[in-house]
Amino acid sequence: MTQTLSDHTIAILATEGVEFSELDEPRQALRDAGATVELVSLDTEPFRAFDSLDPRGEEQPDVAVADADASRYDGLLLPGGVANPDKLRQDEDAVAFVRAFFEAGKPVSAICHAPWTLIEAGVLEGRTVTSFPSLKTDLENAGAKWVDEEVHVDAGLTTSRNPGDIPAFISKSIEEFAEGKHRAQKRSV
Amino acid sequence: MTQTLSDHTIAILATEGVEFSELDEPRQALRDAGATVELVSLDTEPFRAFDSLDPRGEEQPDVAVADADASRYDGLLLPGGVANPDKLRQDEDAVAFVRAFFEAGKPVSAICHAPWTLIEAGVLEGRTVTSFPSLKTDLENAGAKWVDEEVHVDAGLTTSRNPGDIPAFISKSIEEFAEGKHRAQKRSV
Repeated sequence: MTQTLSDHTIAILATEGVEFSELDEPRQALRDAGATVELVSLDTEPFRAFDSLDPRGEEQPDVAVADADASRYDGLLLPGGVANPDKLRQDEDAVAFVRAFFEAGKPVSAICHAPWTLIEAGVLEGRTVTSFPSLKTDLENAGAKWVDEEVHVDAGLTTSRNPGDIPAFISKSIEEFAEGKHRAQKRSV
Repeated sequence: MTQTLSDHTIAILATEGVEFSELDEPRQALRDAGATVELVSLDTEPFRAFDSLDPRGEEQPDVAVADADASRYDGLLLPGGVANPDKLRQDEDAVAFVRAFFEAGKPVSAICHAPWTLIEAGVLEGRTVTSFPSLKTDLENAGAKWVDEEVHVDAGLTTSRNPGDIPAFISKSIEEFAEGKHRAQKRSV
């Protein structure tokens, strides 16, 4: 893979309950593309990743979200796993961290259940997204237009539905991270 | 306990990922109050209950929701667990089953993450509810008023926040099931 992200630092925000494949495969692909990747979490304690509801090893965060400076990162990637965004969206620092990327017009990628955290950040009005199907009504009620596609890109906001979409999600996320800031990301904040 | 529900049949609707205590403790209390309790699920295969993200034994459903006749039941209880309503709300038969209780004005009790299924059933416009705090924004976006109380009763719709609220949830649920149909339940459908 070409080193299209060699001068980029990308944050992955996740906590206990994260879907392992949706964290690990994008992380590896971003590194293969030359990016520095940091795992941001609610604190710096190791947490459990899962294959659906079955534990799949521990992850070691690099930085707690309360101490993470969003301005240091060129983009944000949000993996899914049903319990992961359910915890993140309850944390004010996590929600503010996510919102800061939209306020700065930086690319954000979210897969599966991750868009729940975008609902909490209040950044979806008028945006077109996909997600795990269970979130469709919540996303529409939050002002988004929902589509059923393996990956949808809306000017810097890249979303996918489930682990089966990971290759397409990675490919489009890398494109958006490489393009940099998108004015449209600020529009919905 | 007095047999206040001796001529009542109550459905508990749940699937894999259900919070064990939120299923088991109300089920026992309803039986102690004289009710016949049936466990309705997506199919009749045993499924795993959990203590948060840790498995806690298997549950054997009595009937698949596609074969369950809502008119046979006097009330519906929905336990939480983050993955449980996330699966239920994707199933058309489950959503229609829940909606049928509201259309008939029958009492419904929902704890923790369970109100996500009520969002999908489209029965929350103008209703006052509580829930696990992560659902607050989704519930407000669905037209509900959200309050932070251990149990809230809105004319037949009883809601609580988390396993710590189970005693209050059980007490108010039994009162509402004993009272029977509430005209206001139909109002929001």
